[in-house]
Amino acid sequence: MSSLPDSWIFTASCPSRLGTVDVVTRFMAESKNYINEIHSFDDRVSERFFIRIEFQPQGEAFSCDTFKASFDEQFAPRAAEFSMEWNLTEPGHRERVAILVSKFDHCLNDLLFRHRTGQLNIEVPVIISNHPDLKHLAEWHGIPYYHLPITPDTKPQQEAQILELLEQYNIDLVVLARYMQVLSPEMCEALDGWAINIHHSLLPGFKGARPYHQAWEKGVKMVGATAHYVNNDLDEGPIITQGIQSVDHAHYPEDLVSKGQDIERITLFNAVRYHVEKRVFLSGKRTVVFSN
Amino acid sequence: MSSLPDSWIFTASCPSRLGTVDVVTRFMAESKNYINEIHSFDDRVSERFFIRIEFQPQGEAFSCDTFKASFDEQFAPRAAEFSMEWNLTEPGHRERVAILVSKFDHCLNDLLFRHRTGQLNIEVPVIISNHPDLKHLAEWHGIPYYHLPITPDTKPQQEAQILELLEQYNIDLVVLARYMQVLSPEMCEALDGWAINIHHSLLPGFKGARPYHQAWEKGVKMVGATAHYVNNDLDEGPIITQGIQSVDHAHYPEDLVSKGQDIERITLFNAVRYHVEKRVFLSGKRTVVFSN
Amino acid sequence: MSSLPDSWIFTASCPSRLGTVDVVTRFMAESKNYINEIHSFDDRVSERFFIRIEFQPQGEAFSCDTFKASFDEQFAPRAAEFSMEWNLTEPGHRERVAILVSKFDHCLNDLLFRHRTGQLNIEVPVIISNHPDLKHLAEWHGIPYYHLPITPDTKPQQEAQILELLEQYNIDLVVLARYMQVLSPEMCEALDGWAINIHHSLLPGFKGARPYHQAWEKGVKMVGATAHYVNNDLDEGPIITQGIQSVDHAHYPEDLVSKGQDIERITLFNAVRYHVEKRVFLSGKRTVVFSN
Amino acid sequence: MSSLPDSWIFTASCPSRLGTVDVVTRFMAESKNYINEIHSFDDRVSERFFIRIEFQPQGEAFSCDTFKASFDEQFAPRAAEFSMEWNLTEPGHRERVAILVSKFDHCLNDLLFRHRTGQLNIEVPVIISNHPDLKHLAEWHGIPYYHLPITPDTKPQQEAQILELLEQYNIDLVVLARYMQVLSPEMCEALDGWAINIHHSLLPGFKGARPYHQAWEKGVKMVGATAHYVNNDLDEGPIITQGIQSVDHAHYPEDLVSKGQDIERITLFNAVRYHVEKRVFLSGKRTVVFSN
Repeated sequence: MSSLPDSWIFTASCPSRLGTVDVVTRFMAESKNYINEIHSFDDRVSERFFIRIEFQPQGEAFSCDTFKASFDEQFAPRAAEFSMEWNLTEPGHRERVAILVSKFDHCLNDLLFRHRTGQLNIEVPVIISNHPDLKHLAEWHGIPYYHLPITPDTKPQQEAQILELLEQYNIDLVVLARYMQVLSPEMCEALDGWAINIHHSLLPGFKGARPYHQAWEKGVKMVGATAHYVNNDLDEGPIITQGIQSVDHAHYPEDLVSKGQDIERITLFNAVRYHVEKRVFLSGKRTVVFSN
Repeated sequence: MSSLPDSWIFTASCPSRLGTVDVVTRFMAESKNYINEIHSFDDRVSERFFIRIEFQPQGEAFSCDTFKASFDEQFAPRAAEFSMEWNLTEPGHRERVAILVSKFDHCLNDLLFRHRTGQLNIEVPVIISNHPDLKHLAEWHGIPYYHLPITPDTKPQQEAQILELLEQYNIDLVVLARYMQVLSPEMCEALDGWAINIHHSLLPGFKGARPYHQAWEKGVKMVGATAHYVNNDLDEGPIITQGIQSVDHAHYPEDLVSKGQDIERITLFNAVRYHVEKRVFLSGKRTVVFSN
Repeated sequence: MSSLPDSWIFTASCPSRLGTVDVVTRFMAESKNYINEIHSFDDRVSERFFIRIEFQPQGEAFSCDTFKASFDEQFAPRAAEFSMEWNLTEPGHRERVAILVSKFDHCLNDLLFRHRTGQLNIEVPVIISNHPDLKHLAEWHGIPYYHLPITPDTKPQQEAQILELLEQYNIDLVVLARYMQVLSPEMCEALDGWAINIHHSLLPGFKGARPYHQAWEKGVKMVGATAHYVNNDLDEGPIITQGIQSVDHAHYPEDLVSKGQDIERITLFNAVRYHVEKRVFLSGKRTVVFSN
Repeated sequence: MSSLPDSWIFTASCPSRLGTVDVVTRFMAESKNYINEIHSFDDRVSERFFIRIEFQPQGEAFSCDTFKASFDEQFAPRAAEFSMEWNLTEPGHRERVAILVSKFDHCLNDLLFRHRTGQLNIEVPVIISNHPDLKHLAEWHGIPYYHLPITPDTKPQQEAQILELLEQYNIDLVVLARYMQVLSPEMCEALDGWAINIHHSLLPGFKGARPYHQAWEKGVKMVGATAHYVNNDLDEGPIITQGIQSVDHAHYPEDLVSKGQDIERITLFNAVRYHVEKRVFLSGKRTVVFSN
């Protein structure tokens, strides 16, 4: 669904308890916010409540600062009673996304195309790679490209450089767009919760290297891709979304590599979109996704 | 999502206006109803608001009658100010569904199977057909089967008999499970809004008779099925859901007829399930479906 | 594609070598067989050749016995030079299929429905179960039902009884339609190559017990089903076909169990159909499937 | 399936008649061509035979010219007896494809990306548009871009210019990649059989202008795209392939326009790939597609 240009997004989660919805919707009513869409879900296994609201302030003399102040003053204390973690996103807000790549360019090309044409509402202030190959693509889009080569010996330094760049460019979200390096545990920890990776298999199947070759060996008739948050457990981060496609006996491993590119890039795009539209919530090792 | 056994379902719709959500959620809070899930949508074209809530009453000395009374006394007047049409469904409520068939049994077999195994939470007190062929299937499930033959001359009488049976059996929903008769305008009017038909094409493509043969003539590479509400405009009733499958040059019309059966029965099942779970709202000639 | 009623099916496989196609098509031409469809594939990894032909004999005074004799006399010696394994299926041939079940009836109900309505061109002379629950379903279809209970102690005897029944009923193909028993290595060996199992996950993901629960734990966004040949390596037999469906955070394990039923039964049906239409070839641990 | 670098492709079609396969496979055998894959189909409605073979010449002293000469001398006369139309494609042959666009760039960007990365084995010697907007994209790929504006008055001249360019650049295939102009009957005739168009609906549904808006009005739950050959009957040319995606009530027309882009570009890519891999045959107003 396309949001209206003046739509705000409110999200929150907290332990399940009577009154969670009311604490949110009552404030919305009192502040005269017009609600376009609500999605709430109460997970009866994790006993946790999740809510996402798109709304438009209706007050006549609306001021952004006054509005946010009222959230802090009137809403926040009541939310605190419910141990509610909440977030408010202004209309037109664009997350600052750093894209990490190696040599494959299908995901990068796709993200930049959608970025350029407005399908993906983000800023891309920096692209980082361990190879020089995709510099021209970055340049055509006018985006700074950092080539940070990596060897087993220089891994700690290279990762430190990446983290510095993320800080320097004030990055909100890191996207590993077929960045073909196993991150160190320290790097995983540093990126926990704000980095999305695309893995070219239906995780948890075919973890690790060369998943298409593994899939071919097993003679599967479906291959897929998984977009997940990076955490400290390799290829085990919370799954955001997955995509699949049918294959048959005539697809050799190199065909799977080629055919899988469409699924990879669409799956990664969806995950990034869900994330920046505030549709994804962490719930233990799983995610709640209010997709559309 | 599986509802909890003690879940109530509340649905409502009304013209879009500031405060619609609040009128609902405030009552839910005041009545101490625990909300498991909310879905609301505000259609900015039709300017209409839709909401569906699953909840569980939490009051200690809960009584069903008291509860419904509080809806009528406390909630209804406020809802009326918003011209809200609302509906409350008790836990374990099962709609009484009449199934109309001709000779094809794939949809009937499927609905009865899902009914019998609990996948579809309905009662099926009666099956009506213009042919005797499927009587044995009805009998095996212990369901009364009425064979009401039809000729061009007897159509008005036959349709009147059907309407009488629907009244006699106190039917909530009529399902046309490949009932191969064109209903009269009077019959369409009588069933408007409480009858679901399955058409074996992706409407509005291939309206009318022998849609698979039409599809073959056009050389399409996808065929589908459409479940829609019956209204007074043949094959133009509001669409609830659609299903598709790929076909190729090697599928002759008779293959499409055979291959389409799976899509037809799954599409019809989904539509019936969405309807009885109160997930479908009419919005002009379109539907709002809070699917899951 | 629907075969013509007088279509024969010829299949063959052998090591890759120049002339494999010619040895088949030259005989077809010399015997005046009208070819409706050829599918051949040469696997450059296993270096093996596979071919499937649908054809109709055109000889004026056609006799089935003479025809088969000409295969044996004229074709067989030349095929032997290529170490070709070949098979000839007469028009209207129906494989004799034994179905093994436990308590779940969605796959059984589906196979019997398609059998009864002619979508699946097989005979079902016997149904065998370790539980009495599905006897009524078998009886309604007029098929003998053997209830062979099993305990850890009686497993060898029970499996022996099954094998005796398969022999007694002259069975061509065994279908494990959610038969919830781990077969002994001896039983697996006995069924190697002529038994199809349906596993309710996208193998090799979630092998073993309770795959939907495993899938839920991992938070996957797709679940699936796999139809494969039984061999002596549990849940590792050659995959024939797979099906999938999307799920989300709101699907609890019991929802996956319920939602997965459609994928399971359609996937199993497709596998059985491919097998009896001679579309499946074993190629090491993988399969070649000339699907349609 | 990936073809081997030294694979030739042979295709043919002719009226159905005993011996069609033999005339092809016998020549292949006599010329010592190693067959990797055969696909044949005999359409019993149109009574026409279609065959596609991938093969590798095995002769020791293989010469391309000698080989083609043997086709002309030995094969052609026999093929002529069957009124066979046949085609031989050399390894590494790349069709010369002209792309026509207007302002939308998602299809163009996608085709150029796949061209650049080798997924689509074509040459793109020229891009033609009635708008200047996409010149930069063409330039980045180093492809000449002709901006040929069009008005109702200048349409004949503009179309003549296009045809001249197609001749000048020696074009094999024209791809209308969201070229938003209705071609004149003369232009359609000139392009008959060697131009592929992408229409943003599941034809024959929603022909003509603004199909997504039409789809929204009808409240459909699936939208799609159709790649078809251009012929003299607007939006009625033979369909090559179609793609679909689910939508719901929350998708406004502008969302369908945006969401449909992925289906459009993948569907167009598939059609172009099938065409240049010689997988598509015309069969009256329908196509036979040996896809993979």
